[in-house]
Amino acid sequence: MQFLYWLDILGTAVFAISGVLLAGKLKMDPFGVLVLGTVTAIGGGTIRDLLLDVPVFWIVDSTDLVIAILTCFVTIALVRAPAKLPRWLLPVLDAIGLAVFVGIGVNKAIGQEVNVLIAICMGVITGVGGGMIRDTLAREIPMILRKEVYATACIFGGATHAVSHVYFDVAQSIAMLLGITVTLLIRLTAIRWKLQLPTFALDNSA
Amino acid sequence: MQFLYWLDILGTAVFAISGVLLAGKLKMDPFGVLVLGTVTAIGGGTIRDLLLDVPVFWIVDSTDLVIAILTCFVTIALVRAPAKLPRWLLPVLDAIGLAVFVGIGVNKAIGQEVNVLIAICMGVITGVGGGMIRDTLAREIPMILRKEVYATACIFGGATHAVSHVYFDVAQSIAMLLGITVTLLIRLTAIRWKLQLPTFALDNSA
Amino acid sequence: MQFLYWLDILGTAVFAISGVLLAGKLKMDPFGVLVLGTVTAIGGGTIRDLLLDVPVFWIVDSTDLVIAILTCFVTIALVRAPAKLPRWLLPVLDAIGLAVFVGIGVNKAIGQEVNVLIAICMGVITGVGGGMIRDTLAREIPMILRKEVYATACIFGGATHAVSHVYFDVAQSIAMLLGITVTLLIRLTAIRWKLQLPTFALDNSA
Repeated sequence: MQFLYWLDILGTAVFAISGVLLAGKLKMDPFGVLVLGTVTAIGGGTIRDLLLDVPVFWIVDSTDLVIAILTCFVTIALVRAPAKLPRWLLPVLDAIGLAVFVGIGVNKAIGQEVNVLIAICMGVITGVGGGMIRDTLAREIPMILRKEVYATACIFGGATHAVSHVYFDVAQSIAMLLGITVTLLIRLTAIRWKLQLPTFALDNSA
Repeated sequence: MQFLYWLDILGTAVFAISGVLLAGKLKMDPFGVLVLGTVTAIGGGTIRDLLLDVPVFWIVDSTDLVIAILTCFVTIALVRAPAKLPRWLLPVLDAIGLAVFVGIGVNKAIGQEVNVLIAICMGVITGVGGGMIRDTLAREIPMILRKEVYATACIFGGATHAVSHVYFDVAQSIAMLLGITVTLLIRLTAIRWKLQLPTFALDNSA
Repeated sequence: MQFLYWLDILGTAVFAISGVLLAGKLKMDPFGVLVLGTVTAIGGGTIRDLLLDVPVFWIVDSTDLVIAILTCFVTIALVRAPAKLPRWLLPVLDAIGLAVFVGIGVNKAIGQEVNVLIAICMGVITGVGGGMIRDTLAREIPMILRKEVYATACIFGGATHAVSHVYFDVAQSIAMLLGITVTLLIRLTAIRWKLQLPTFALDNSA
């Protein structure tokens, strides 16, 4: 699980970077950037903990909060031209962070003895919550609601994890790795071949 | 109260449908649609339970969550052209859902021994919270903040319910039906005759 | 601390007014205005209390809620042309409210025995949370994320308060006054000379 610990740190940092980069489009004050990046990194887990009525993770142990804040400062200092980064880098890091966060969310929910459906929901919320807050604050329609096979990846990965552990008695750690792998593969496949589900559009909305 | 149980199911389903229909305007991924519809259906009650510090209703009993998810799938599968529905159908169903949700919210708050003002607030939050999250995620100014006599109906319905029970010792079930009737009548009247309060606009905003 | 009590009332009222004035741009129903104003006034403290897992302050003691609601009504009734107010009045009142809210947030957090970083976060959340909800609902990019030295003032004021109390054993009430003064001075300076930090913008956002 030590490996997972580092993936969690990585996920937190990547999400913070994505918040800072979005802020870069919006001409924000540096401390506004800090707020947006930090909220992106820890927002999903925060909503999950509030819903599960357990102490909020970054209040209990501030490691992730510190990582998020430091990442924001470093990103603000270093990244002036993200276009110079390889185009695939951020989406791939984001996919890793997403997959790990979904796994952590399902894990924590199962520890609270909720049913499988709730566990999957908590995984999805942990994975996508931060990005939804980020996009909402920045006045974008949340990316995950659009056409990136984003929610889809979380739902299938979370379901693999929760179902294999609860119904098929797969050990928690194995189930989690399975789920993380599924989320990651779906996202990476979607990124590589620019896959997307047919979008849902209505002729004439009510 | 069996009747109320079915109205709650109806309200949940209607709010999920309204989320899916709004998503239809925004070219979302089907699983993004699922997220938006579900959040619309259970968001208000979720905020209420967090504020009252009671376990979140859909984690305790997943019926409403399942109803919301199934309704989203069915709506995605079936509704391709909402314009073919009679124009009054959705607003009327929405009014019923709203009235019931306000009643349930006031009820739950009174069970936590809060004062009348808080009980009314909890009714309003239960009624309008989901729609506010829906509109915010979809980057609309929340409908209830605009000019639909929407918040107004909730406030008066919730007040009727809470005041008649707490100050006039009307039995909880009767008070609730009274309140639901008031909310519903105000909304239906507003829908039927396109009533609206004069909007509040400033000459020159600060 | 009696003085602080009145500053809290003032802060609540000012934030409610700012919500009502923003609503004035958006052609809202009067009860929608009431919702927006009230959420602005009590939103920050509400998020703080949820995160700290303490009872929500306006449910325990409804004074602030009543103040917020009354202020909204009075503002709706009286203020038809905010342009006639001196231009500096609202920003200055807002700065006072902000400074007091940050102080109250840090105070409450320290009472829950969290570390200094968390205490600062809670101060910032209490100060800016309501305004962020207000701007999000009104579909504005939250002001505090832009270029008003707004988040900056909260962070430095909150840090002064928490650090001086926890690390230098300054009495809570003195530390709080120090912190409030710092927040206030930074904001007032920024308002007076239209200071702002260089904005963070990227050449080409990812």
